[in-house]
Amino acid sequence: MESKLSPAASGWRQRAYSVIFEADTPEGRLFDIALLWAIVLSVLAVMLESVREINAVYGYYLRIVEWGFTALFLLEYLARLVVVRRPLTYAFSLLGIIDFLSVVPTLISLAIAGNQYLLVIRTLRLLRVFRIFKLGQFVGEGEFIVTALKASRYKIMVFLTAVLTLVIIIGTLMYVIEGGQNGFTSIPKSIYWAIVTLTTVGYGDISPTTVLGQTLASVLMILGYAIIAVPTGIVSAQMATPRSGSPAYKQVICHECQATDHKPEAEYCWRCGEKL
Amino acid sequence: MESKLSPAASGWRQRAYSVIFEADTPEGRLFDIALLWAIVLSVLAVMLESVREINAVYGYYLRIVEWGFTALFLLEYLARLVVVRRPLTYAFSLLGIIDFLSVVPTLISLAIAGNQYLLVIRTLRLLRVFRIFKLGQFVGEGEFIVTALKASRYKIMVFLTAVLTLVIIIGTLMYVIEGGQNGFTSIPKSIYWAIVTLTTVGYGDISPTTVLGQTLASVLMILGYAIIAVPTGIVSAQMATPRSGSPAYKQVICHECQATDHKPEAEYCWRCGEKL
Amino acid sequence: MESKLSPAASGWRQRAYSVIFEADTPEGRLFDIALLWAIVLSVLAVMLESVREINAVYGYYLRIVEWGFTALFLLEYLARLVVVRRPLTYAFSLLGIIDFLSVVPTLISLAIAGNQYLLVIRTLRLLRVFRIFKLGQFVGEGEFIVTALKASRYKIMVFLTAVLTLVIIIGTLMYVIEGGQNGFTSIPKSIYWAIVTLTTVGYGDISPTTVLGQTLASVLMILGYAIIAVPTGIVSAQMATPRSGSPAYKQVICHECQATDHKPEAEYCWRCGEKL
Amino acid sequence: MESKLSPAASGWRQRAYSVIFEADTPEGRLFDIALLWAIVLSVLAVMLESVREINAVYGYYLRIVEWGFTALFLLEYLARLVVVRRPLTYAFSLLGIIDFLSVVPTLISLAIAGNQYLLVIRTLRLLRVFRIFKLGQFVGEGEFIVTALKASRYKIMVFLTAVLTLVIIIGTLMYVIEGGQNGFTSIPKSIYWAIVTLTTVGYGDISPTTVLGQTLASVLMILGYAIIAVPTGIVSAQMATPRSGSPAYKQVICHECQATDHKPEAEYCWRCGEKL
Repeated sequence: MESKLSPAASGWRQRAYSVIFEADTPEGRLFDIALLWAIVLSVLAVMLESVREINAVYGYYLRIVEWGFTALFLLEYLARLVVVRRPLTYAFSLLGIIDFLSVVPTLISLAIAGNQYLLVIRTLRLLRVFRIFKLGQFVGEGEFIVTALKASRYKIMVFLTAVLTLVIIIGTLMYVIEGGQNGFTSIPKSIYWAIVTLTTVGYGDISPTTVLGQTLASVLMILGYAIIAVPTGIVSAQMATPRSGSPAYKQVICHECQATDHKPEAEYCWRCGEKL
Repeated sequence: MESKLSPAASGWRQRAYSVIFEADTPEGRLFDIALLWAIVLSVLAVMLESVREINAVYGYYLRIVEWGFTALFLLEYLARLVVVRRPLTYAFSLLGIIDFLSVVPTLISLAIAGNQYLLVIRTLRLLRVFRIFKLGQFVGEGEFIVTALKASRYKIMVFLTAVLTLVIIIGTLMYVIEGGQNGFTSIPKSIYWAIVTLTTVGYGDISPTTVLGQTLASVLMILGYAIIAVPTGIVSAQMATPRSGSPAYKQVICHECQATDHKPEAEYCWRCGEKL
Repeated sequence: MESKLSPAASGWRQRAYSVIFEADTPEGRLFDIALLWAIVLSVLAVMLESVREINAVYGYYLRIVEWGFTALFLLEYLARLVVVRRPLTYAFSLLGIIDFLSVVPTLISLAIAGNQYLLVIRTLRLLRVFRIFKLGQFVGEGEFIVTALKASRYKIMVFLTAVLTLVIIIGTLMYVIEGGQNGFTSIPKSIYWAIVTLTTVGYGDISPTTVLGQTLASVLMILGYAIIAVPTGIVSAQMATPRSGSPAYKQVICHECQATDHKPEAEYCWRCGEKL
Repeated sequence: MESKLSPAASGWRQRAYSVIFEADTPEGRLFDIALLWAIVLSVLAVMLESVREINAVYGYYLRIVEWGFTALFLLEYLARLVVVRRPLTYAFSLLGIIDFLSVVPTLISLAIAGNQYLLVIRTLRLLRVFRIFKLGQFVGEGEFIVTALKASRYKIMVFLTAVLTLVIIIGTLMYVIEGGQNGFTSIPKSIYWAIVTLTTVGYGDISPTTVLGQTLASVLMILGYAIIAVPTGIVSAQMATPRSGSPAYKQVICHECQATDHKPEAEYCWRCGEKL
């Protein structure tokens, strides 16, 4: 659409923009799917490198693969910066930061070798997978879940406060009842046990041995079993209510700063003020 | 509003009341948030004191912090008593007792040192956190959950009776099948195991080893997996039904006795008869 | 109502009937509550007797209590037989058999001492607790749950068939993958493991150790986590739909054979043909 | 009905077809139920054969039973091929392949003895159990579940992507925090742990021991406990919406290629074009 673009952004840059940032042309969709595979494969390489047996044999090749993907993501990041009209706004948006983080750690690891936490940052590039939800059929569905969760966020916060209070009080009680010799060595550890029990995870690394402790644990389990009905009920009820707005308008993404969630009647981007 | 107050409660007392007990003025909200932080930090101090390594090093400072918070809560409790028009009604209300309990244990521990159960009472002050649900957006949400749970309380009691009956019968069966040498040393212990299994917690401290026992356990697990649908269904259905009354009127809190839940058309408090 | 009763059943028998079998008079309600306590206390005695330490000290008194309750239940059973107009129909109804079973085991244990399975039959008397759901507010609620479960029974059967098929196929796969040395010693045991995992119980007595096994286990866990949505969805949807019939008519219980669930327009009992 | 059949398919073949493939005549229903039992018993034989103690004593008889059932299934498979008008279309349909697989492995095991994976293929014949859902009351119910799951498949995929991303990022974090000496020996293993925890299975074979690890684990557990509300909400909301079409028409199965799901007004099969 002519009106959405300033005269400068015409030609190749406009086409490149629609390939890299959008998914409604065949090339755009292809680009997104290729990117998705690159992300998944690069994270797979990170994972395999951590397995000692595999690292001993294929470590060399895995590092080459890692460098290849980093180069690719670097190129892609630069392309995004060139193509977007307001590079700074993009660079400091959430997606921009994640795009940046998927490139940097491997480069840094040249300088500071062996920093384990870079591993975690490397897997953060997985968050870029959520870009694919721009793809056709997923747009509405992803929005639907996020909208339902947003609408019930206060109810969920009330629920979590109640759960945390319960878990702290019962954890303290168990610390007093069972005591250190049964594994309940401190209140924080007893609270950890209470969370393990209430959420029905039940590792069994700490478990009550006194009669009173087992009785209280039974009460906590039945409580945990019953109150899971609360968040489920909240989200179910939320999802069953008809959606207020049409989901269609949400697909409008600002060409400048990648902001979404514009009101249907909006003419200008709510973040950067650019005309949509 | 003039009509809501007797002539005596004017001036500073009226202002203090609205700061301490209400949350619709900026000062009132600030007071509540400060109180929330004081509660959370004081409970954190109790928790950290129980960790031996931390207690050995910082125990002295933690006890000072504890005394500081106790002094603070004592002041706050006295302020509440002074400001409320009917101190006795407040003192024997649920919230009043909790406010009282958050002050006393530390004072008592001067006299009787080493009573472990005082620890539990100290964490009970966490219950005061629920005062924050007076704050703006939470009022309706907390009410919503409580209302839905109240409306389904008979259904949940029927469900719990069925679960308890099932757990007792299957626990007894397992006691007979597995016997003491496999950890099922008594019927209460077998019932404890049945609860651990039905609620899908599954510690693994006791687990069946005979073929018949494992078969019965499998049946119990699938039952537990399937019947969790019942409380969830009850609460979901309850929450999906439209609310009968407007949630707005629930925010009216009696200035005398802190009672809530007044009918929208009510002019007088249902508990103490004071004009709202 | 005159029309509901044959001339013979008038006088004391009629009054005794309403006390013992019904719950809408004050005496009837009192009788039911007393019975409820007797059941709970007698089952508690059975449970405590199984704890070695308690049995060693209080065993003698517990056995006296047991005999007392058995005498009570025997009297009550005879009273029911005398008061009901068709004793045989009652005696062979489900509730009649349970009433009978709550009396017999203790008597038999005179003859055959030490039969452990009598313990289980003794706890079966807990099923009589469901009589209390005749009491006021519970009638509709219990009916509601049972009706919702009945209405979704075919859906739940389809779901359970799918779960069982899944569990058998994955159990066999794990038996082949992990083999006997990792605890998967036979297909039934592997199926037991699959059930423990799918239902998210997770004892940890058997757990996969090979990479392939852990991968398959991960898939099974996520499946188990996701498909719990199916029974929950079924029951929630069922409970959210408005009830077709008025629950009120369900309270009509045949005076002859204790059958319930008569159609609202029914004039005769569907089981024994007696006029309602 | 005369109009549904070409002249060639009359007489015995038509009758045999309705017995073997359909379930609306008494003979057809009997055939399906007999087949169901044969499947269940044959899988039971496979399972029992894997138990060493049973195999040592009854192995010989179990193998005879196995051969008997294989002969039966072979006969049945040939009968299906003969009776269906387009054998090739049937042979390459999903149900046709499963029918084929239930016969072949036992025959192959003559040639290649000891191939463990044939065991798994043998249990695949359990999938044939789903044929019984043709039986009367089940048709609509099975369809209902499948339809609801199909309608929510994109939402469930979005949810699973979010879960997998979360599990990979937290797994990597735990690998860095806990390290190899606490059982978190590689990123894939840490991800396995994260799945075990998030799904609330909680084996306890690997569990965090550092304070930071236990804190992160607590967050993951509460997340897992809360986000189970999402798939449940999706499916509940889906099932609560009224079904678009009448379920009745779905029972029409094409006589040629076994296709179902024809539109109510359809006169010809959508797959093979044969007149219905």
